[in-house]
Amino acid sequence: MSCKVVLAQGISVSYREELKNTIKSRNIRPKLVGFLANEDPAAAKYAEWTAKTCAETGVEFELRTCARNDLEDKIIEANQDTGVHGIMVYYPVFGDRQDQYLQNVVDVSKDVEGLHHKYVYNMYHNIRFLDEAKTKKCIIPCTPLGLVKVMEYVGVYNGILPHGNRLHGRVVTIINRSEIVGRPLAALLANDGARVYSVDINGIQEFHRGVGLQLKKHEVTETTLKVEDVLPLSDVVITGVPSPSYKVPSNLIRDGAVCINFSTFKNFDGEEIKKKAAIYVPAVGKVTVAMLERNLNGGTES
Amino acid sequence: MSCKVVLAQGISVSYREELKNTIKSRNIRPKLVGFLANEDPAAAKYAEWTAKTCAETGVEFELRTCARNDLEDKIIEANQDTGVHGIMVYYPVFGDRQDQYLQNVVDVSKDVEGLHHKYVYNMYHNIRFLDEAKTKKCIIPCTPLGLVKVMEYVGVYNGILPHGNRLHGRVVTIINRSEIVGRPLAALLANDGARVYSVDINGIQEFHRGVGLQLKKHEVTETTLKVEDVLPLSDVVITGVPSPSYKVPSNLIRDGAVCINFSTFKNFDGEEIKKKAAIYVPAVGKVTVAMLERNLNGGTES
Repeated sequence: MSCKVVLAQGISVSYREELKNTIKSRNIRPKLVGFLANEDPAAAKYAEWTAKTCAETGVEFELRTCARNDLEDKIIEANQDTGVHGIMVYYPVFGDRQDQYLQNVVDVSKDVEGLHHKYVYNMYHNIRFLDEAKTKKCIIPCTPLGLVKVMEYVGVYNGILPHGNRLHGRVVTIINRSEIVGRPLAALLANDGARVYSVDINGIQEFHRGVGLQLKKHEVTETTLKVEDVLPLSDVVITGVPSPSYKVPSNLIRDGAVCINFSTFKNFDGEEIKKKAAIYVPAVGKVTVAMLERNLNGGTES
Repeated sequence: MSCKVVLAQGISVSYREELKNTIKSRNIRPKLVGFLANEDPAAAKYAEWTAKTCAETGVEFELRTCARNDLEDKIIEANQDTGVHGIMVYYPVFGDRQDQYLQNVVDVSKDVEGLHHKYVYNMYHNIRFLDEAKTKKCIIPCTPLGLVKVMEYVGVYNGILPHGNRLHGRVVTIINRSEIVGRPLAALLANDGARVYSVDINGIQEFHRGVGLQLKKHEVTETTLKVEDVLPLSDVVITGVPSPSYKVPSNLIRDGAVCINFSTFKNFDGEEIKKKAAIYVPAVGKVTVAMLERNLNGGTES
């Protein structure tokens, strides 16, 4: 049993240091506004982290709370306010498709979460810039981006291989196929060369780098595989099941696997998983917040 | 018992005649492409109707079937094809938020269903034109638009009142708050002056014309009301519950109410409702198809 437990705090340090220096050297103070329109304690906690991290790195953070039926107007107000550089919303607000509507109400130029359709579409199509002159980089949804950074940090990405192929040969299982994290993450990893099994309650899809449209897009195939088929094949297992009772069956995990949990609940049994995994990342929230700030900072470049 | 049963076929006649004449006089043949990427017999039936109605009115309709994982590429292909004037998709495809993603992949200029975020946002904000010069009218989501036309036809809109206030004094209950029909319909009717009770499994919201943003937007308030409170108050009851077992309790319907069902299932008990309602519209599918064609035709104006 020699599992290395890697904490998000440590992973985020270098990103936060970099940001701090950039902000200092530019002599600006970017302003991020967070909207809290639910009673979810996890959201309030996430807001607290954001405030704390922003204070450390020199970002002005303002939390605005409102009733959910007022949120749309409040977002539009912030869109129009030139003193606001970035906007984020603590989801879920309505918990249904109305949340996706709100994600598109946030102005593209102020969206630090990367949830606007334009960013999501560009990410799926491996389009890296907003403009043809390639001056404005696309924002990548911040939790998937954070997970990529975690995977780089723990050595899943192979620096010997060319950019865009650094996951060649890796098999990854992702247990979550939400539009916010699981599906975009599967696409990102497939675009970087991995074979990805994307698991949700309806079944397992395989994502792999495809020829697709303009040779840019990943391909998806439906499979009849089950979790017990794909877990033993996987070098990396990433989970985000929003339930306190769900646990990944540790006995199916391959010896020496990398196990990463992005749910606010512990999807791995901490003791059991350490007997199988080589690397275990129990939470990633702090890396996500660092990515938010990074996206905000990208936004102030223009 | 003197309930008048009004059929969608009859309501749609005048719209279809108008379209037929416009198409003839312009000497064009607009092309509508429908994408079927599910196995839902209701979708196949809807596609059949679309084909039939298009043939009658002089619209070229092409049904393209594909696997759901290929749909995005196929939509993009049609976006880029100048021979295609309108695009529609038979939902549900994935049945989750990925469907909403696909709605935004359809090019704004070819979206005849009015499901693109730009149209939905403009509808909620009562913005009627895409451009400042007011040359390009916004598409309104076709099922809500069809329901407005049904309500005009059966006399719920009062032509004596000024435009934009023709539902003043009307109380409407809508049992469905989906992003595709129920919520936009509630907003449209509130923008026209009605008091609307919007019912879903999580509770009842009241929509009314508000001062809101730029004096244009409806307002929404959460209520603690129940169906048994709002049905007896309602001049109009509109239902769209996608279940064969759901029935609106006829005993709660006000005598002389207007009852409209847009579900593919019969949400009203046909015999019982005729004893209470003054007007009963058991289905609206054919009006929806007429609106699709109307939207397509608007699209060819530019």
